[in-house]
Amino acid sequence: MSGMVREHFADRLTAAIEAKQSRVCVGLDPSADRVPPRVRAQATGEVGPGPAADAHALWLFNRALIEAVAPYAAAVKPQSAYYEVHGSAGIAALERTIAYAHEAGLLCILDGKRNDIASTAQAYAEAYLGGGPLGCDALTVNPYLGSDGIRPFAEAAAAHGRGLFVLVKTSNPSSAELQDLTITGSRARAGGTLHEHVARLVSDWGAAHVGQSGYSLVGAVVGGTHPEVVAELRRRLPHTWFLVPGFGAQGAGSQEVAAAFDGNGRGAIVNSSRGIIYAHQATDLSRAYAPEEFAEAAGEAARAMRDEINAALAQVGRHGRSGDLPHRRRAGGAGR
Amino acid sequence: MSGMVREHFADRLTAAIEAKQSRVCVGLDPSADRVPPRVRAQATGEVGPGPAADAHALWLFNRALIEAVAPYAAAVKPQSAYYEVHGSAGIAALERTIAYAHEAGLLCILDGKRNDIASTAQAYAEAYLGGGPLGCDALTVNPYLGSDGIRPFAEAAAAHGRGLFVLVKTSNPSSAELQDLTITGSRARAGGTLHEHVARLVSDWGAAHVGQSGYSLVGAVVGGTHPEVVAELRRRLPHTWFLVPGFGAQGAGSQEVAAAFDGNGRGAIVNSSRGIIYAHQATDLSRAYAPEEFAEAAGEAARAMRDEINAALAQVGRHGRSGDLPHRRRAGGAGR
Repeated sequence: MSGMVREHFADRLTAAIEAKQSRVCVGLDPSADRVPPRVRAQATGEVGPGPAADAHALWLFNRALIEAVAPYAAAVKPQSAYYEVHGSAGIAALERTIAYAHEAGLLCILDGKRNDIASTAQAYAEAYLGGGPLGCDALTVNPYLGSDGIRPFAEAAAAHGRGLFVLVKTSNPSSAELQDLTITGSRARAGGTLHEHVARLVSDWGAAHVGQSGYSLVGAVVGGTHPEVVAELRRRLPHTWFLVPGFGAQGAGSQEVAAAFDGNGRGAIVNSSRGIIYAHQATDLSRAYAPEEFAEAAGEAARAMRDEINAALAQVGRHGRSGDLPHRRRAGGAGR
Repeated sequence: MSGMVREHFADRLTAAIEAKQSRVCVGLDPSADRVPPRVRAQATGEVGPGPAADAHALWLFNRALIEAVAPYAAAVKPQSAYYEVHGSAGIAALERTIAYAHEAGLLCILDGKRNDIASTAQAYAEAYLGGGPLGCDALTVNPYLGSDGIRPFAEAAAAHGRGLFVLVKTSNPSSAELQDLTITGSRARAGGTLHEHVARLVSDWGAAHVGQSGYSLVGAVVGGTHPEVVAELRRRLPHTWFLVPGFGAQGAGSQEVAAAFDGNGRGAIVNSSRGIIYAHQATDLSRAYAPEEFAEAAGEAARAMRDEINAALAQVGRHGRSGDLPHRRRAGGAGR
C-alpha cells in the first residue's frame, strides 16, 4: 500500500455506496440531437450557433443531470465517444462534466475502453487516472493485449488512488463470438471460456492492489444481460469489483444484476445510461414529464433504480440463494 | 459499392503507396518532454507558458515532421493517447495535425484502438471516420466485443471512403496471453489460435467491402515482431490490408516485415514511430543531428526505412519465397 497518495479506489467506492445507500451509476452518454430543445437553445445563446454549441449543450445537459441524480447515485460514467465526436470542444465539455461530478460528490468512471502498451498505455493512464483535466476515479480498459496492456494502468491507478474496470464479459449479443470461445492447451490454465480466462487474469492483475474493503482497484466489466455468467464470476472473483452495464435499455433488471453483489450487498455498481438521461421519454414513471423536465425525470428514474436494486438485494438477504452462491447465506443486510 | 461518397479506402491506400513508392507509415507519438527545446520555447512564445504550451508544442513538432517525411511516407499514424493526455488542448493539436497531414498529401490513420457497440460505436465512427475535425482515413479498432463492435465502424467507413484496422496479433510480448490461446468447440469454427479466429472474423467483416484493388476497407493490425505469424496471416487473408507496427524500436526489421506483403509488394503498410520522430537521437544515420535538426533526421530515417523495405521486397521478388508463400513466385516488381 506504500506509495499511494490517496485513499484506495475500492475503499472509496465502497464508502460512496454506503454513504448514498445506492449502487447506481448513471451513464452520461448524451447525443447532441437528443438533448432537449431548451438546453440546445441555451447553448446556442451562450456560445453562438455551430458545432461548438452542440458540445456546449452536452455540458449544460450533464450539469442538470448531475444535480438531479447526485442524491440517488454513487457515480457517473461518461462514455467518451459521445464527447470525442465533437472534437476538442467535446473534450472540453467532458472536462467540465468530470469536474462538476466531483464537485457534486459523485465518483466519475470514464468509459473509454482504452487499450495499448508501454509508454502509450502510460499516456492513457496519465490522461484518465492522473491529475490532469480528464482525471477520473476509474477507467474502463480492454484486455486483448494481455498484461502489457493492463499493468501500466494498474500501476498508475495505485499511485493516484484510482481504479480500472477490465472488460471481461460485455452486455452485447455478439460478445459470445470471442468471449465465450472455449480455450484449451498449455496457455489456458484451467481452461473454460475466454472470458473466464480473462477473469483469472483480472484477479491476478488485481491481487497486489487489494484495499481495506477486501476489494482490488482492478475491477471487471460484467454485463448484466448474462445473469448466469454474473453469478459464476462473482463466485470466482471475491476481490473484484464489478461494473455492470446493461440495466434498463439493454434488458437487465434488478433480479438479473443482484447476482453481481457479494453477501453484504457490496462489490458491484450497476450502470444505466439511456434509461436515466432520457427518462423524460419513458412511460413508466410516476407522471409524464415534458422535455424541459428531463432532470426531474432523471432524478426519479435514478431513485427508482436505486430502490429496485436495494429491494432485490434485501430479498436475497432474506431468502438466501438457490445454492449457487453458498457464501451469500451469511448475508444479512444486503439491502441496507 | 453503392452509397459510397468517396473512393474506396483500400484503393486510395494502394494508390498512395504507388505514388510515393513507399510503404512507410510514420507514427506521430510525441511526448511533450521529448519535443526538442527550441520547439517547446516556440510553443511557449506563441501561447504562453503552461499546459497549453505542451499541447501546442506537439502540433509544432508534428508540423515540421510532416513536412520532412511527406516525400518518403504514404501515411502518418497519430497515436491518440499522446494527445488525450493534454485534454482538450491536446485534441486541438490532434485536429491540426490531421488537417495538416491531409494538406501534405499523406493518409492519416488514427491509432485509437477504439471499441464499443451500437450507438456508441457509431459515435466513435462518426468522430474518426466522418467529416468532423478528427476525421481520418482510417482508425484502429479492438475486436474483443465481436461483430457488434466492428460492423458500425465498417458501415461508416464504407459510407465515407474510410477504413479500419482491427487488432489481430499485436507486437508486444504479452500479446500471447490472449491472442495465442488455442480455441476449440462449436464456436471456434476451424479452431487454431484466438488470433487466427479473429483473422477469420476480419475476413468475414471485410468481405462485403472489397475495392478495385482486391483489398477490403477492413484491415488488420499484425505486429512485425512475429514474422511467422505475419506470413501465415498473409496467406490466410488475401483481401486484407495489414498495418504492421513494431518496426525499429520494437525490433522488427525489413526482413521481418517483408512477409506482410503480397506477391506484388502490396497489401501492407509498416509503421515506425520513435525510430523516425526521435531519429535525431539515433546513432545509425549518415551524420549526427542536433535536436533542432529533428525534422531533417526524421526525413533521413523515413527515406532509409522506405528504401530498406523496398530492397527487401525486391530481394523476395528475385529469389522467391522458401515455399511458404507460393503465390509470391509470380512477383516481379515488388521493389518498384
